Order: sequence, then structure tokens, then C-alpha cells
Amino acid sequence: MRTGIIERQRAAMEANGLDALVAVSPENFAYTAGFVVPSQPLMRWRHNAVIVTRAGRTAILSVDMEASTVRSKAPGTEIRVWGEFTDRPMTVLAGLLRDLGLAGARVGLEMDYLPARDFEQLSAELPKATWWAAESLYDRLRQIKTPEEIDLLRRLSRLADESIAEAFASVRAGMTEMDIAGALTRGVYARGAEYFKLMIIATGERSEFPNVGPTGRVLARGDLCRVEIFPIIGGYHAGVCRTAVVQEAPPRAQQIWRTLTECKHLVLDRIRPGASTRAIYEVFLRKFGELNLPPISFVGHGIGLHLHEEPYLGKYSDSALEAGMVLGIEPLVYDAGMGFGLQNKDMVAVTTTGAELLSDRTNTDSLIIIP
Amino acid sequence: MRTGIIERQRAAMEANGLDALVAVSPENFAYTAGFVVPSQPLMRWRHNAVIVTRAGRTAILSVDMEASTVRSKAPGTEIRVWGEFTDRPMTVLAGLLRDLGLAGARVGLEMDYLPARDFEQLSAELPKATWWAAESLYDRLRQIKTPEEIDLLRRLSRLADESIAEAFASVRAGMTEMDIAGALTRGVYARGAEYFKLMIIATGERSEFPNVGPTGRVLARGDLCRVEIFPIIGGYHAGVCRTAVVQEAPPRAQQIWRTLTECKHLVLDRIRPGASTRAIYEVFLRKFGELNLPPISFVGHGIGLHLHEEPYLGKYSDSALEAGMVLGIEPLVYDAGMGFGLQNKDMVAVTTTGAELLSDRTNTDSLIIIP
Repeated sequence: MRTGIIERQRAAMEANGLDALVAVSPENFAYTAGFVVPSQPLMRWRHNAVIVTRAGRTAILSVDMEASTVRSKAPGTEIRVWGEFTDRPMTVLAGLLRDLGLAGARVGLEMDYLPARDFEQLSAELPKATWWAAESLYDRLRQIKTPEEIDLLRRLSRLADESIAEAFASVRAGMTEMDIAGALTRGVYARGAEYFKLMIIATGERSEFPNVGPTGRVLARGDLCRVEIFPIIGGYHAGVCRTAVVQEAPPRAQQIWRTLTECKHLVLDRIRPGASTRAIYEVFLRKFGELNLPPISFVGHGIGLHLHEEPYLGKYSDSALEAGMVLGIEPLVYDAGMGFGLQNKDMVAVTTTGAELLSDRTNTDSLIIIP
Repeated sequence: MRTGIIERQRAAMEANGLDALVAVSPENFAYTAGFVVPSQPLMRWRHNAVIVTRAGRTAILSVDMEASTVRSKAPGTEIRVWGEFTDRPMTVLAGLLRDLGLAGARVGLEMDYLPARDFEQLSAELPKATWWAAESLYDRLRQIKTPEEIDLLRRLSRLADESIAEAFASVRAGMTEMDIAGALTRGVYARGAEYFKLMIIATGERSEFPNVGPTGRVLARGDLCRVEIFPIIGGYHAGVCRTAVVQEAPPRAQQIWRTLTECKHLVLDRIRPGASTRAIYEVFLRKFGELNLPPISFVGHGIGLHLHEEPYLGKYSDSALEAGMVLGIEPLVYDAGMGFGLQNKDMVAVTTTGAELLSDRTNTDSLIIIP
């Protein structure tokens, strides 16, 4: 169990007049408990939950199939087990809340995750409790990462960056997207990733498409190669994307890359506590506008236990950056009818004085060359 | 859009007095529309939905970020787009339902997926509608696969089976789990998988653990090597697990494998329409009991758009098998304190007369040998 994060949750409960927080989503379970229950994100009916009371008491609801894992990862914590084929999880959760003296309490719960059926059952079991939608509270807490979370995201960012660079270095014209994929997946596991999401291997005319995996397409002179991956450890994601060219890029692609690189540095230079997210987006937009291409609606977003989290550096919201935030920054052009696409996605932490580039292993000021 | 499956949904609506079905989960969206919206399973707030009315009218709710993909995959279908940063998805969905004449209708909805917050908003927007929990209806329909679904699951089963065999054939004592992982991931993508879930590479003393990925562990004489993967195409999963041994297995492992192999054939021989799922489990249990080891609570389960679906061949339920069902069958022993684990997982379709082994590329009657 993560004592520092539990302390933050207790302070948030004080501020919001809550008696307890019950994390039911895989993200907020991992956030609070410090580990992932392996099948929870894969089979959503296998409910697991972490309860934290305002007084600092903690308890876990675990599905029977995962009870041995949960016991080994949370020694000393009270664990209440429900049977996948024999119990209703909300009945067992209600019993646990009752035993913790919370039958009439004001309880924060993620209403954007808990299915309607489960919420109906839980509230019927505990008719005197008051339920408070806690998703925004968790989102807000998670925006500011602890030093340990930033260390993990730095490790993930570097392993993604190094693995993509290694995969590009392992191929030549005449080899295929599958060769890039083979080297890349091996690279992320070899560097300690537990899993990954969204491996994009998009070369040549395919580099224009948003979310495409590897095929047998053969690499040929002039191909742009967009490669992105999100390795995962302990439920945390880093997203890094790099673009390479086979031998030599078309002049238009070179020109676009120069502008995207300028965009990256303009954004990095402006990241610091207090900076306006929309103002940073507008700086990006002015530079990007020189290309006369359709811009994306955000140039960056928070990242951590979700692929995308608040805050966005975009046009639809404005907030002030704070130290401890971690952002994915991604100047890009694809899906623009050019027959190719380019993207550079970096991971950045907001420090007390500015920005720390976490994906710092590859110099991306020029396109990576595949010989 | 899948016309055959939509016809089945219409018949189910007739039988249950429903005016419309609204699929909101990634699985039932893919089931009905015939394609996956890439970010829907990754970012659950990006709601997409398919509406089918009893009269056979269809319409799609799409998040703006995915609208171009949805339009290209469902030409001719009415598509209503909501803006991720500008709209509430349930307000837009309610408008679409209203325009389809469903404001006062009896509507089936997956209450085990739709979050409590979204259901509250949707029902407030359409106070005259009646909402009916449709998850069991979808689950039941999905149990009986169409010939096209079985073709896809056969393809996935074979590609998993071949890729595991190829990965084992590519390694020798002295190489590592990472070498198996590199060959395996490459193998599944090279054979056309779009993605995979749950790659388990568990060798030596690690073969005892349920869900573990690859490490740098070096393969040594006598190691048992449990390898499982779930490749995915169009949202459908096949799960195949194989066990190999480096050079020569300990006698106890050989003995267990012989029993697991007998269990597999006993189960396969009994799979046919009308067979009792619990009776098959009990046949397994009698044979497995000869080992004096703790048995799993099910030896098989439905599989398709979810990793696990009904029916289970297990102790907690009983139902009759039907032609068109697809099952994962997995005699196994791990987590039993022996210092090693063994597992054999196959994909099987229930035909009109018996069972078709879909993962039919590897003879598993003896342990696979790694030299």
C-alpha cells in the first residue's frame, strides 16, 4: 500500500467531507495499492477495490482468483475475498464497508467506472450511505506525481526511447515492418517492461494512418517510418513516438520535420509551474500554422496510469501547470492526405523550475536515418 | 455492419419485447458493427455505441476522434458524432435515440458495462424510456458463433499454435525467456494478428506462477517452459498454451503430462451438442484426481470477444453444449508448490456431431523438446 498517496487521499477526504474513498477502477486500485491485479483490466467483472478511510484505515476487496497475488503484494492489509462463481461482489463489498463502520458514511466512488448494475446493487445493500462521485478527485490527485512515480515514468520513457532507436538501428532498406516490430517488442521486454499497449509501426504510405500495427511491408528508399509504443510497468504508461526515414526524406517531409522540431522546443521552453496550458498550445499553433496543414486539437496531455489524463495542452481547456505533472508532448502531422505522416512524441516532467525531458536518449532534431 | 448478427438481435428483441438494443461495450460494439473502434477499449470515456431497432434500423454513436475510422468501416450507416472535449456523450446518444423514435421505448442496455454516471445522465435525458439489462442477452447470443466467427477463431488458434511452436523451435539451452518472447511476438504479428493480450513466458521455477511475462532467465536442462498467448483480430481472441521441456523432463513432470494429455482427450471425446458441461468437468476431475494435486475449478470456458465467456466446463454451473460454441480447454497444474508448472490450452469448436480442434498444428501428446 502506498502510504504517501494514502496520506494525500486522506487530506482530500478532509477537504471534501468524505468518510472513505473506494477505488474500484484498475487505475485507482493500482494508484492506491501500488500494484496491479493482473486480470482486473482484462475481465471487468472481476471486481477488486481498495478502501481508504479518513482515519487512515485500509482494506482490499479481492476476487478469489487473485487472492493469493493480492495477499503477497499487500501483507498486513485486511483482505476480503469474494468468489467469482459464488458471490455478488457488491454484496461482499457492502459487508466490508459495514464492518468498517461505513454503513451510513459519505463514500467517494468512481461513478465513471462502476457499472450501473453494480452501483444499483451496492446502494441497495447500504441504503443509509451517501455516494459521492470521486472520479475528479482521483484525477486531480493523480496529476501531481510523487518522486517515485516520476522515477518510474523516467525509466519507462527511456526504455521506450532506447527500444525504438535500437529497432530502427537493426533494419535496412529491403527489410520489413515486421523486422522493426520484432526488435521493438524484444527491446521493451528486455528492458523490463511488463507489457505494452498500442505498438504503431506505420511506414511509407501507411505512415499516414493513426493506429496501425506492423505488416510485411518492405522498407524502401524515401519511406517515412512512424513508430510508437507505450510500455507498461505497474500499470504506468510512457508513450514515445519517433520518425525515421529510409536513406533520404522528400524535401517536403524535411521541411515539416524542421517545423515540428521547432514546435517541440517552443513547447519545452514554455513548460514550467504556472504556465497556461492553452497559451502553450497557442504558441505551438502559431509555429505549426506556417505549414498550412490542419493542426491537432492538443499538442500534449497528462499521462500515467491512463494513456491520456488531464491536463491537455489544447484548445478546449485552460489550466496552470504544476510541478510534478508528467506530460506527453506530440507535434505531429498525419491523416492529412500527403501520403506520409510524421510524429515526435516525448515524455516531459514539470519540475519546480521548468521541464525535464524524460525520453532523453535520442536526439530528434533531425529525422533518424535507416540505411 | 453484421447483418446475420443483427437479424439474431432482432429475433431476441421480439422474444423479449424490446424496441431497441444499444451496444455500448467494446465487445458488443465489435460484435454488432463488425469492427473495433481502436481507442474504445483503451480509453473508456471515449464512448461509442451501435443501436439496432426491432424494425432493423441501425445507427452508430461515435466519438469525434474516431469518426473517420467509423465512417470508413460502416458506410451507409447513420453516424452521430460527439465531441470528446465539447459534448456529453449521453446527451448526444439520447438525441439520437429520440430521433429514431425511441424516446419512450423499451431499450436493452449493458448495465454491467455502462458506468453509473452515464446511465444516470442517459435516463435523465429520456425519462419516458424503459431500460432493460441486456448483458445476458448479448452473452447468450455470442455463445453461438457464426461460421465467419468460427473461421476467424480457427485462424487465430492456428496462428497462436504455430507461433508458439516456432518460438520453441528457435531456442536452445543457454538462451533466455526473452529469446522465446522475441520469436513469439514476431510470429503472431507476422501471421496477421493485430495485437495480443497476456503473453506468458514462464520457465523453470517461474513456470509455477499464473501470469508472468518474459525475463532474462537462462534456459537450462530440465526446465519446464509454459508459454501462452492470446492473439487478437477484430476484437476476437484465441488462447493457446503449450509446455516444452529443455532436453529432458523430470519423471514427475512426465507423469503429470501423461495425465493432462489423457484429460485433454477425455474432454475432447465428450464435447458434442447436448453434453452437460458439469459432467465433462467431472470426467476431467476423476482422471486428474489420480495425481493427488489440487484441481482447477473449471477445465474449459467459452472464448471469443472476451478472454473468458460462458459456458464454463466447471463445478459451479451446468448447461448443455450447443453447436457453434467455441471453448478454450486447459488441463493444467501450476501454483501447486512443486517448483514447476504444466499447462496445455487448446481451442475447440462444438460442431453438429462433436468437437473440432481449432489449435491443431502441434501434437501435444508428448512434451515439446527444446534441445
